[in-house]
Amino acid sequence: MRGRETINELKTGVLSGDRAVLGRALTLIESNRLDDRRRAGELLAALLPFSGKAHRIGITGVPGVGKSTFIEAFGLRMTERGHRVAVLAVDPSSSVSKGSILGDKTRMEELSRSADAFIRPSPSGGSLGGVAGKTRESIVVCEAAGFDMVLVETVGVGQSEVTVADMVDFFLVLKLAGAGDELQGIKRGILELADLIAINKADGDNLAAARRARAEFEGALHILRPATADHWLPRVVTASAVTGAGIDEIHDIIVEHRRFLEAGGRFEAIRRAQALRWMWSLVDQGVRTAVREHPEVRRRLKDLERDVVDGTISATAAAAKILGAFGIDG
Amino acid sequence: MRGRETINELKTGVLSGDRAVLGRALTLIESNRLDDRRRAGELLAALLPFSGKAHRIGITGVPGVGKSTFIEAFGLRMTERGHRVAVLAVDPSSSVSKGSILGDKTRMEELSRSADAFIRPSPSGGSLGGVAGKTRESIVVCEAAGFDMVLVETVGVGQSEVTVADMVDFFLVLKLAGAGDELQGIKRGILELADLIAINKADGDNLAAARRARAEFEGALHILRPATADHWLPRVVTASAVTGAGIDEIHDIIVEHRRFLEAGGRFEAIRRAQALRWMWSLVDQGVRTAVREHPEVRRRLKDLERDVVDGTISATAAAAKILGAFGIDG
Repeated sequence: MRGRETINELKTGVLSGDRAVLGRALTLIESNRLDDRRRAGELLAALLPFSGKAHRIGITGVPGVGKSTFIEAFGLRMTERGHRVAVLAVDPSSSVSKGSILGDKTRMEELSRSADAFIRPSPSGGSLGGVAGKTRESIVVCEAAGFDMVLVETVGVGQSEVTVADMVDFFLVLKLAGAGDELQGIKRGILELADLIAINKADGDNLAAARRARAEFEGALHILRPATADHWLPRVVTASAVTGAGIDEIHDIIVEHRRFLEAGGRFEAIRRAQALRWMWSLVDQGVRTAVREHPEVRRRLKDLERDVVDGTISATAAAAKILGAFGIDG
Repeated sequence: MRGRETINELKTGVLSGDRAVLGRALTLIESNRLDDRRRAGELLAALLPFSGKAHRIGITGVPGVGKSTFIEAFGLRMTERGHRVAVLAVDPSSSVSKGSILGDKTRMEELSRSADAFIRPSPSGGSLGGVAGKTRESIVVCEAAGFDMVLVETVGVGQSEVTVADMVDFFLVLKLAGAGDELQGIKRGILELADLIAINKADGDNLAAARRARAEFEGALHILRPATADHWLPRVVTASAVTGAGIDEIHDIIVEHRRFLEAGGRFEAIRRAQALRWMWSLVDQGVRTAVREHPEVRRRLKDLERDVVDGTISATAAAAKILGAFGIDG
């Protein structure tokens, strides 16, 4: 091991597009060590003026939908079209036994060898809020390194899509046709977040079912998200990494969506609102954590929770006691 | 004005079903005055052992869907079937010019004259969290007063349905057929919350459209919420306060849903989980408010927000500064 790089060395390396330095910069950003966090803050502040220029695209889908194969095909096509593509992952399950998305080194082999692509596996462990927080900062770093398209991958479970949708410009949901009810069931809010739904693996014997699914989703979206002049009407397409079908169409829709937002001056407004929501979500997450980790709260919590469940005190009274233990008077 | 009742007098009056005392007890619960809040806490603690026995039913729908007419018809039918019915309102818009739901004295005239019904308008002002918090406590008071069915009405906007859905046993969404895209559009998550969707005003010329809408919603629900042994499959019915169609069917479905939950032991588990979530939501709301009202945070906020929007500091750095101003180190 050689000596630690200075923040300025990291900054210069990232800005020059040095992939090894970029990797170390992201490792620093992801670190939860106290001294690393201070240095990460300095690095982020130094890179911030060089960020913001990438098209940020969220991609979600349940396990088995073919996310990595799709992202590889899509990413390669984007590099062919002249883009420099970074792929980041937000994985709320990474601390669980299921294993991290993007963690498998054999995934996206071809894309990972491309000089115009950079793939970053999900940081392990941490809360979703924490991981997602790091991902937002990783976007900044990748943008400073010259990537003009950032793909943020997440799995279709829990709160992660909502979190990712609020850090990207465009949100793509991958679905399967004929995958049975369980896979097909749409998690709360996902349909409402999507700018585009792609019915994936639409090839071979699967093609007819994919086309039927496309019509079904278009029907559901028509009910859920009526189009107005101010609101993008989400699209539905079929796609296949095997045949390449849909890949260019998806890119065209992403570009069209960007023009739609920019025409109304909404693009910058959305980015600004996202930044403020991000700030407040970090604040609220910080105080939530501080309450839950407060020694006096922890000392009293078990009894209070039991009393609430038993109905011997009201939730209101218990909440007041917790706030009081934290030092806030009701 | 006569002297203040003691908490014990209020308790005795509520438990005996005295409607005037019940009204005053709810006014105390709704009050934001500091000394009232202390007394309200005592009253709630005294009534808590007598609560929990009502069937709690949330009812939502956008303005114009016919909520009050439906609730009057439904409530009257329930009293005929031997229930004692309390109606409470959660209205996030009550502080705005639109006016409070249930605030119009001429609404639900017949139901309000019934000896077996009690109608409480939405408390005016306050945040949704605040109003909803009061509503949860009002449910406790109404249950202690002997009402075995509590209807919680809310308007179909914003976060209020999610909040109400988490304080009731059953969530009913009223919709209109052929009301144009704007009314028909389903807000985020509403379809996911519904245990039952009733296409209201299904009478006269509207009947055919209502039946088509019912089929459409059943299709959308089939995609959104596949049934499993552990999960209730949401129903869709047509209803009319004019003809009385659907009213008994809705009650039957509510009873069937209750049996479904009780059979698996899920009913009590859901109530317990709701109470703990309620406690934590009050805690989180309390700290959120405390941060935003903190003098040092307020002093620095405007500059920090401007810097985040301008991109001169990161949201992470700004959040750390806000937390620091509040007294929490990052």
